[in-house]
Amino acid sequence: MRGRFISIEGGDGSGKTTQIQLLIKKLEEEGIDILFTREPGGTVISEKIRSLILDPAHIEMKDMTEALLYASARAQLVGEVIKPAIEEGKTVICDRFVDSSVVYQGHARELGIETIEDINSYAIRGLYPDLTILLDIDPDEGLHRKKSQKELDRMEMQALDFHKKVSEGYRLLAIRHADRIFSVDATQDIETIHRSIMAEMKRRFGYGENENGARHHS
Amino acid sequence: MRGRFISIEGGDGSGKTTQIQLLIKKLEEEGIDILFTREPGGTVISEKIRSLILDPAHIEMKDMTEALLYASARAQLVGEVIKPAIEEGKTVICDRFVDSSVVYQGHARELGIETIEDINSYAIRGLYPDLTILLDIDPDEGLHRKKSQKELDRMEMQALDFHKKVSEGYRLLAIRHADRIFSVDATQDIETIHRSIMAEMKRRFGYGENENGARHHS
Repeated sequence: MRGRFISIEGGDGSGKTTQIQLLIKKLEEEGIDILFTREPGGTVISEKIRSLILDPAHIEMKDMTEALLYASARAQLVGEVIKPAIEEGKTVICDRFVDSSVVYQGHARELGIETIEDINSYAIRGLYPDLTILLDIDPDEGLHRKKSQKELDRMEMQALDFHKKVSEGYRLLAIRHADRIFSVDATQDIETIHRSIMAEMKRRFGYGENENGARHHS
Repeated sequence: MRGRFISIEGGDGSGKTTQIQLLIKKLEEEGIDILFTREPGGTVISEKIRSLILDPAHIEMKDMTEALLYASARAQLVGEVIKPAIEEGKTVICDRFVDSSVVYQGHARELGIETIEDINSYAIRGLYPDLTILLDIDPDEGLHRKKSQKELDRMEMQALDFHKKVSEGYRLLAIRHADRIFSVDATQDIETIHRSIMAEMKRRFGYGENENGARHHS
């Protein structure tokens, strides 16, 4: 039986890592065979592409070059790891996937949401996640934490603007792909968020239905 | 004034290098400011991407990963070198460009001509060559050179098949982009080919009109 494919998205400070750990632990307790991977990277070739993107010597790198490099690393991860695992019946959990590129390159860096989605449709060749969990943060949240916007210097303002655009971008995608993306308020406490995610997993796939410890595969 | 952008295409053994040298020499004699570049490569970042593609350790590399890597190297070459040169009024001569990817990855490796053209339309963002010179070789040419097809081993047959597909792919593109691609029979002698190319340059851009040595810029 074909496995499920679940991606998890969220900006910095959204508690993504914690929620992934809780999710994997819970699913493994249910006896589900999990393959966990993350982007960018996940294969030898994808890691080399990632190093190329992140190399600080590459200050000349154009935004479109970067977007295509992320897509190429993703094509390799899909072809070499994700697709075979799903075909073996494993449930694949991926920390960041297509939506990260769409939000960061497409929306925040303004290459265009459609452009980045179109490029990535070739990279993944139809292999969209069955479910994307979005740890949602209010775009204005960052601002409110600071005492006053006037106290911020230019660099801080730019960083804040970028984070705001990332949160905004994720919200746009949650509307655009309402069937696939499940959005959860990341400002709630850890247990509440985890319970919401598990309820959605149950609703979609029947995972975690049996809370008494009896194992079953959906 | 915006400069011209000319790409040269052709399979192995088409005499591409010789014709590029003759073309550049002729245009420089006319006083035209030339920037010559080649693919894959042409920038520090593009060369690193090229090394990644060609590294023999990367036997696991998927065709789509490779296609996206070529596109990313091209995006960088366009943004960092070709576009600025054209804006400075230089005539850019590029040894291979988009069509190479479309023929090799799209047609010969069967990822699809439309797929590779679409991906690359993002990489080049509308900067198609004003003219593409195709050094055309008959797809069956390679076969006729051998005494008999029966004498070839399996590897030779595969290599021959691939070359045939490359020639075929170029011919398909010459029809698909008849306005942009000027095809010249590469089995003719060097001087005849060069004269055909210069006649096309004259027809399109007025280059080489004055054969008496007086310099002019079109």
